[in-house]
Amino acid sequence: MEKFDNNEHPHRRYNPLTGDWILVSPHRAKRPWQGQEEKPVAGTLPMYDEKCYLCPGNERSGGVHNEQYTGVYVFDNDFPALLQDEVAVEEESNALFQLKPERGINRVVCFSPRHDLTLAEMEVPAIVEVIKAWKFHYNDLGGRDFINHVQIFENKGSVMGCSNPHPHGQIWSQSSLPTLVQKTQDNLLKYYQEKGNSLLADYLEEELKKEERIIAVNDSFVAVVPFWATWPYETMIISRRHFGRITDMTAQETEDYAAMLKTVAVKYDNLFKTSFPYSSGIHQAPTDGEDHAEWHFHMHFYPPLLRSATVKKFMVGYEMMAEAQRDISPEKSAEILRALPTTHYKFSN
Amino acid sequence: MEKFDNNEHPHRRYNPLTGDWILVSPHRAKRPWQGQEEKPVAGTLPMYDEKCYLCPGNERSGGVHNEQYTGVYVFDNDFPALLQDEVAVEEESNALFQLKPERGINRVVCFSPRHDLTLAEMEVPAIVEVIKAWKFHYNDLGGRDFINHVQIFENKGSVMGCSNPHPHGQIWSQSSLPTLVQKTQDNLLKYYQEKGNSLLADYLEEELKKEERIIAVNDSFVAVVPFWATWPYETMIISRRHFGRITDMTAQETEDYAAMLKTVAVKYDNLFKTSFPYSSGIHQAPTDGEDHAEWHFHMHFYPPLLRSATVKKFMVGYEMMAEAQRDISPEKSAEILRALPTTHYKFSN
Ligand SMILES: O=P(O)(O)O[C@H]1O[C@H](CO)[C@@H](O)[C@H](O)[C@H]1O
Ligand SMILES: O=P(O)(O)O[C@H]1O[C@H](CO)[C@@H](O)[C@H](O)[C@H]1O
Repeated sequence: MEKFDNNEHPHRRYNPLTGDWILVSPHRAKRPWQGQEEKPVAGTLPMYDEKCYLCPGNERSGGVHNEQYTGVYVFDNDFPALLQDEVAVEEESNALFQLKPERGINRVVCFSPRHDLTLAEMEVPAIVEVIKAWKFHYNDLGGRDFINHVQIFENKGSVMGCSNPHPHGQIWSQSSLPTLVQKTQDNLLKYYQEKGNSLLADYLEEELKKEERIIAVNDSFVAVVPFWATWPYETMIISRRHFGRITDMTAQETEDYAAMLKTVAVKYDNLFKTSFPYSSGIHQAPTDGEDHAEWHFHMHFYPPLLRSATVKKFMVGYEMMAEAQRDISPEKSAEILRALPTTHYKFSN
Repeated sequence: MEKFDNNEHPHRRYNPLTGDWILVSPHRAKRPWQGQEEKPVAGTLPMYDEKCYLCPGNERSGGVHNEQYTGVYVFDNDFPALLQDEVAVEEESNALFQLKPERGINRVVCFSPRHDLTLAEMEVPAIVEVIKAWKFHYNDLGGRDFINHVQIFENKGSVMGCSNPHPHGQIWSQSSLPTLVQKTQDNLLKYYQEKGNSLLADYLEEELKKEERIIAVNDSFVAVVPFWATWPYETMIISRRHFGRITDMTAQETEDYAAMLKTVAVKYDNLFKTSFPYSSGIHQAPTDGEDHAEWHFHMHFYPPLLRSATVKKFMVGYEMMAEAQRDISPEKSAEILRALPTTHYKFSN
């Protein structure tokens, strides 16, 4: 029998955060691609775009004007997925037809007044301001009675459903724990109760020993391609210290987090010499008033590109019906990302 | 307090097959869209394309030539995600690094020798031949010792990662139960043990009474927008009779299944007057030699389009980090699909 090789043999890996398995088919990266190509990102953007509804001073849908902001700017989403009103629902007794009204508040976070920047091209002190805004709104929203979870995320690039290149993210806060957060919490809690330790602290310790999947480190944070990564160049930023909330970060940790965000974003842009699309999001303790010692602050990056600036991975038929699948081993992806420079290709040479 | 309205108020619904909740934000369908548009499907295709590696007689990657087939044609995938060889793996004791080699066989199923057809435009007797091929390969693959699950699926349209418009689907068979199938089985089994009945039989009975989400019926099958649908125009075909495997279908049921497949595909094409993209897949009993009375044959259709032939729903940031989200109520989608004609727009008037 042949000896197992990570980069050759089909296998499944277990994601201890979600409880799901994924299928890894590393040999499949060799197949030719004749399918859809994405549009590469258009040339250079202006610093200010008079038609952009996120630029300072401009008018948004509904007629409101943005402030003439100079740093980070946050406002309530004009087309929120969640509303604050309470509504009265008739109970349906059949367990196959369960429905619950849901309340929440959605906000938009403009990272910079500059239309042409991204986190990858912003300076670390400017990214610190973004993190401070995230902290403020985690507290402000999470502090309300009817808000038990605050999801901070960014969709970057039109391939990720982002309709405006102006650098921005979103915050969706709501009454319930969303499905994936609930699963993560259940798994973190189970581990914490069984081992008396943070799952991600133990995981990080092993990763730092193995060194196979680490792509960057600083004093407070580590960026790693998780052992169970699904997207071709998926990464996770994990805090070295075990804390559960963005508001638990010290001033030094906040700086280090900003620096790590920039490092990951720059490496991504450098990979295919393009403004690299992804969805990112922070997983942290819910705001339900409980202690939640099981939570360990981390951030996911799910980027769709596979082979080049125009060829992405499609999570379709098999993946939708059966199981997530990837074509390149996490170790190989980590090796590639690790080797990339931390200076943005636009500013190098 | 305002009275709850399906088509106005944000709410969450429970999917009893996966155990997940989804967020429904029906009011959000009103927001304008300024993001990415998909390429509409190019003009008319030839009946035969000399450059297509799926057309009869043509050469495939690797130099093999397709047979001069006249009906359905099945071959082993030239770039399979799974391989048959057994490999030896060293045990890793750390539960955070679980990895298992996986074996399997992948096949490609050409639905028709005609390059320019789709299930929507094929005749019912020709679709019966496709179903017969699915039956044959479910048996042929499932009959092997090391194959415990056979996933039949189709990716249609370049937006769903399909790299060739020649009508075809795939079969990925493997040793393990894939994540989503395992979850579905767990939920079906739990219900079956508790109620002594098929979950989907009970669900179907209720849906047929409510009539809100049914889009088509015949003697053996019902097509419905599930109460917990995630994709804007997601549907499910459920067998009226409780059986677990495609091979359990009678000759009459096979005909009725073909007719229902065509009805769903035609309604989809008629919705935006385009060759409607989707991923579809059959969920049925695993081939592990057990009885599996809990399984109830059904087929999922997950189509991405939301507003038109070029604007799709993006399952991105919030959806990837937190919970699947939809912008139009399942009842509204069902109403629209139900009203559409069952004659293909290309052939009407
Ligand atoms: O097998 P194909 O058609 O080359 O590839 C397509 O379907 C597969 C199974 O859903 C996916 O893994 C691929 O990402 C997709 O492009
Ligand atoms: O809120 P936006 O940027 O308009 O919309 C984008 O992000 C949302 C949250 O992930 C998704 O639900 C939408 O499908 C996507 O287009």
